Amino acid sequence: MKGIRRLAQELDISIGTVSRALNGRADVSPETRQRVLEAAAAMGYVPNQAGRSLRQGNTNAIGFMIELGADANGGNDNFFMGVFDGVQSVLARHHLDLVVLPCPTGEDPAVYLQRMMARRLVDGLIISATHRKDARIDMLTKMRIPFITLGRSNTPGDYPWIDLDFDGAARRAVDRLVSAGHSRIAIAVPSNDINLGFIFLDGYKAALARHGLAFDPALVVRVPSSELGGYQLGHELLAMKERPSAVILNYELLALGLYRQLGEAGLQAGRDLAVIGFRENPVSRYMSPRLTCFRLSLTGLGAAIGEALLATMPAYAEAYPLGRTQRIWPMELVPGESDGA
Amino acid sequence: MKGIRRLAQELDISIGTVSRALNGRADVSPETRQRVLEAAAAMGYVPNQAGRSLRQGNTNAIGFMIELGADANGGNDNFFMGVFDGVQSVLARHHLDLVVLPCPTGEDPAVYLQRMMARRLVDGLIISATHRKDARIDMLTKMRIPFITLGRSNTPGDYPWIDLDFDGAARRAVDRLVSAGHSRIAIAVPSNDINLGFIFLDGYKAALARHGLAFDPALVVRVPSSELGGYQLGHELLAMKERPSAVILNYELLALGLYRQLGEAGLQAGRDLAVIGFRENPVSRYMSPRLTCFRLSLTGLGAAIGEALLATMPAYAEAYPLGRTQRIWPMELVPGESDGA
Repeated sequence: MKGIRRLAQELDISIGTVSRALNGRADVSPETRQRVLEAAAAMGYVPNQAGRSLRQGNTNAIGFMIELGADANGGNDNFFMGVFDGVQSVLARHHLDLVVLPCPTGEDPAVYLQRMMARRLVDGLIISATHRKDARIDMLTKMRIPFITLGRSNTPGDYPWIDLDFDGAARRAVDRLVSAGHSRIAIAVPSNDINLGFIFLDGYKAALARHGLAFDPALVVRVPSSELGGYQLGHELLAMKERPSAVILNYELLALGLYRQLGEAGLQAGRDLAVIGFRENPVSRYMSPRLTCFRLSLTGLGAAIGEALLATMPAYAEAYPLGRTQRIWPMELVPGESDGA
Repeated sequence: MKGIRRLAQELDISIGTVSRALNGRADVSPETRQRVLEAAAAMGYVPNQAGRSLRQGNTNAIGFMIELGADANGGNDNFFMGVFDGVQSVLARHHLDLVVLPCPTGEDPAVYLQRMMARRLVDGLIISATHRKDARIDMLTKMRIPFITLGRSNTPGDYPWIDLDFDGAARRAVDRLVSAGHSRIAIAVPSNDINLGFIFLDGYKAALARHGLAFDPALVVRVPSSELGGYQLGHELLAMKERPSAVILNYELLALGLYRQLGEAGLQAGRDLAVIGFRENPVSRYMSPRLTCFRLSLTGLGAAIGEALLATMPAYAEAYPLGRTQRIWPMELVPGESDGA
């Protein structure tokens, strides 16, 4: 209490107000809170939140597990930065903060998660890069830790999830290409067992069937979700005996390597090969030709994830009467120059 | 102890070994540790590390603060993912883990940091995106929290830092362009007060002076560190009365927007304008023309940051007799096709 008393004296406000400000309580104005935090910083005072959390039984932090391996989730771009901002916009309403837990390349995500849970750093958790079978889901369910997955999984259970519309994007890409006269359409999917690859491929197959086109396994190209993977994809497409006239990408930055490979062969996307990418991002907007792809709001997605997680936590559920969220996040087609339409 | 006893029984090993495995002690083999963690996960047992940390007075976690605002640090790419992996490779030797603290867009970094420090989540801290004057440095010094900055600052003090060689990159870019016959060389720098912009510009000025070239303020273009910023840069360069024949970029993804703007005017980088970018990344490797830029090892940088931080922490300093690190991280020029050499 000594530090708090000194702070209160210096700011000429009550000890109770200082304490409430430091505890992030809603009955303190943002201005007062900021004054208190700044004064505390200036005098080097750090309230012992670990002690307080232990008494209160919570940490006031929410975790977001990501995987650093570049191929895990196309995480080597700005996707997560936008989502983090959206999650935090919701957490801030309740004076909760986000801590990101980056699973190192090469470490088993389930073992990593178990170790991080043992630290009791967080009250709830968001996990991403879900696999077809994901051991983390059972683990978190057994531990009774509130969680939500960004991405579906085949692991059974009534857990909440939000996922991008991989199925719808694949379908709409096929529809658009078929309308433009294409019938030999290749597809790029990830080379690992991340679940989105299966969903994307299923959407593609279903759309082909609806248009009466036969599915040809030779047109499915498995490459890492990276610029290099796109370069390899270009190589494989050009080596095919019966070349496709169009390709659909599960990851937008594949386009960069693909463009490069085409350029080296004197070919050009949009003119010689129709290309439809996945998510619009700043790179896809400025590449030439501009990539036809799908737009989504990253901060909107993050906010929806935050609200759906809080809806499962007793302390916050009243503010979010959503029930258990299982939701496909919409994506809007943005026409570019890469599919020659 | 009930959970630990049941775990020990199930695995048929001693309670002491289980406890040491859960505590991440070095005298337990990695295999045993993994067996214990997996069994603990299977039965939903979570040791209460928050309680243990309070008794031991540490958290066994190191924090890494990043800023989500896209313009803060060019953070909208894979830079941090590689650095996190490198930091963790060092922390893992001591059973320490990394937690990433993402400061939301629009929040004052110093206020955010004060709040996160109050949570006592971490034993030491890495901060990035240092500003010319950075309030966080004084704050952490006063709090006596071990820290290191990724990036220099003008804030005085004897704190440890590691920074990329912005100065050397600017100098070598000028040298290379002058050797190729250029004398009217523009430079792009960030539009905010992040410190790297000042260092980059100083290196450019010093190199011009060494070659006997006058510094022309009209050739300094301030744009956001983004693809859009590159597009704006192209617009400004093309609008100049006396057009430069070369440009040096403080951020590599500016090249993408710049290429696009040049292309729309029927011009091409490498042929009509020599371009040298900053950091080599997967995008710069596959853009056409390939960007001439500078290579550095992200995991190597991360490992150096981790070791330099541990060197300042009494519990680990013996293993890292480095003293207080203040170090410029080297970068190697990678010739591409964009500077027409």
